[in-house]
Amino acid sequence: MKLVIGNKNYSSWSLRPWLLLHAFGVPFDEHLESLAGDDLSERLRQHSDSARVPVLVDRDLSVWDSLAICEYLNAQYLSDSAWPQDAKQRAVARAVVAEMHAGFAALRQHLPMNCRAQREIEISPAVRRDIQRIDTIWSQYARPDTEGNLRLFGSFGIADCFFAPVIMRFTTYDVAISQASQAYLNSMLAHPSLQKWVTDARHETEILSEEEVGVDRA
Amino acid sequence: MKLVIGNKNYSSWSLRPWLLLHAFGVPFDEHLESLAGDDLSERLRQHSDSARVPVLVDRDLSVWDSLAICEYLNAQYLSDSAWPQDAKQRAVARAVVAEMHAGFAALRQHLPMNCRAQREIEISPAVRRDIQRIDTIWSQYARPDTEGNLRLFGSFGIADCFFAPVIMRFTTYDVAISQASQAYLNSMLAHPSLQKWVTDARHETEILSEEEVGVDRA
Repeated sequence: MKLVIGNKNYSSWSLRPWLLLHAFGVPFDEHLESLAGDDLSERLRQHSDSARVPVLVDRDLSVWDSLAICEYLNAQYLSDSAWPQDAKQRAVARAVVAEMHAGFAALRQHLPMNCRAQREIEISPAVRRDIQRIDTIWSQYARPDTEGNLRLFGSFGIADCFFAPVIMRFTTYDVAISQASQAYLNSMLAHPSLQKWVTDARHETEILSEEEVGVDRA
Repeated sequence: MKLVIGNKNYSSWSLRPWLLLHAFGVPFDEHLESLAGDDLSERLRQHSDSARVPVLVDRDLSVWDSLAICEYLNAQYLSDSAWPQDAKQRAVARAVVAEMHAGFAALRQHLPMNCRAQREIEISPAVRRDIQRIDTIWSQYARPDTEGNLRLFGSFGIADCFFAPVIMRFTTYDVAISQASQAYLNSMLAHPSLQKWVTDARHETEILSEEEVGVDRA
């Protein structure tokens, strides 16, 4: 099984299924396509007609989109354990993930994921609303798992993976959030698989200038 | 069970789960919230913290987001029949739906759903790319069901529901597409549940001026 991803420092969509695979210990090959260059669409189209990352290639099957990949992995490789087992909790988890999947345009645009940077930035009212909504979600649904780690719905799964890029954004831009949300952020940031991703991102040298915003923090 | 929706003429996100419920004959109450008015967020927040439509209220459970609602309905009320049964086809169907769920920003913005209108509009290059991608998806995955109706992956399901708003957009703005895609569009447009939605939309009188674009076709 192969996961095609973009630059680890920048590709928020790639991080989600990568984290799911890595955290659950599913063996996979990683294929990194640089998101720079005029031939990007051409290169990505070799993996999927959608011309986007991430793409999961499992023998003759090619699945694109971070959510569809996570659903496929959950069903085929994770014995359905990456969503809450309770039907109602599962529905709410899918709602939270879907909201992240299609929404938060202001946050995405103005606070691009940039794992290795530490920046200051002005927070617009639209971004502030996105942050507040995420704060509400995290403080409402983060609960200790059996080992005491704070995870959404009390057990590491797709919902945590979907908010992992936000963990990185809030860290990079030092976004102020409630104590409950900060505790969830800290607990997720300490996850060994997320740490591995960040370490890999720090080793990358390619710079995508359009993703570099804000001024370095002292 | 109650589905909270926006104006049928305009609310593309509401159409998706409504169509799934109606087409599969699941009994439900419809609660329409006008998308006009300064008190919109307040009114919507009474149904869901996300302050968006659609929302499904099933006894003490409130599920928001069109995709999460469709997944919940599929699992709880449709015996898992609203996705293809084959695991690979299901993965591709989820990819196509997820791509629609998070993408096609240009199409959404410039060709708003307006079921009762017939309009001419200039198609920008970005919108053209979105149209071409949808054309590729439809012509690749539309197949006759057991009754000869063209449906995505050969059986009416969540994928058809997700593209139903695009069926309406292409109809309103008379968008030129391939013959194969046009055949799928025609077949979907004749679906009795979609016809019911359009009839209801025609009976609505409220006008959301920001959704009214283009000039009337002769």
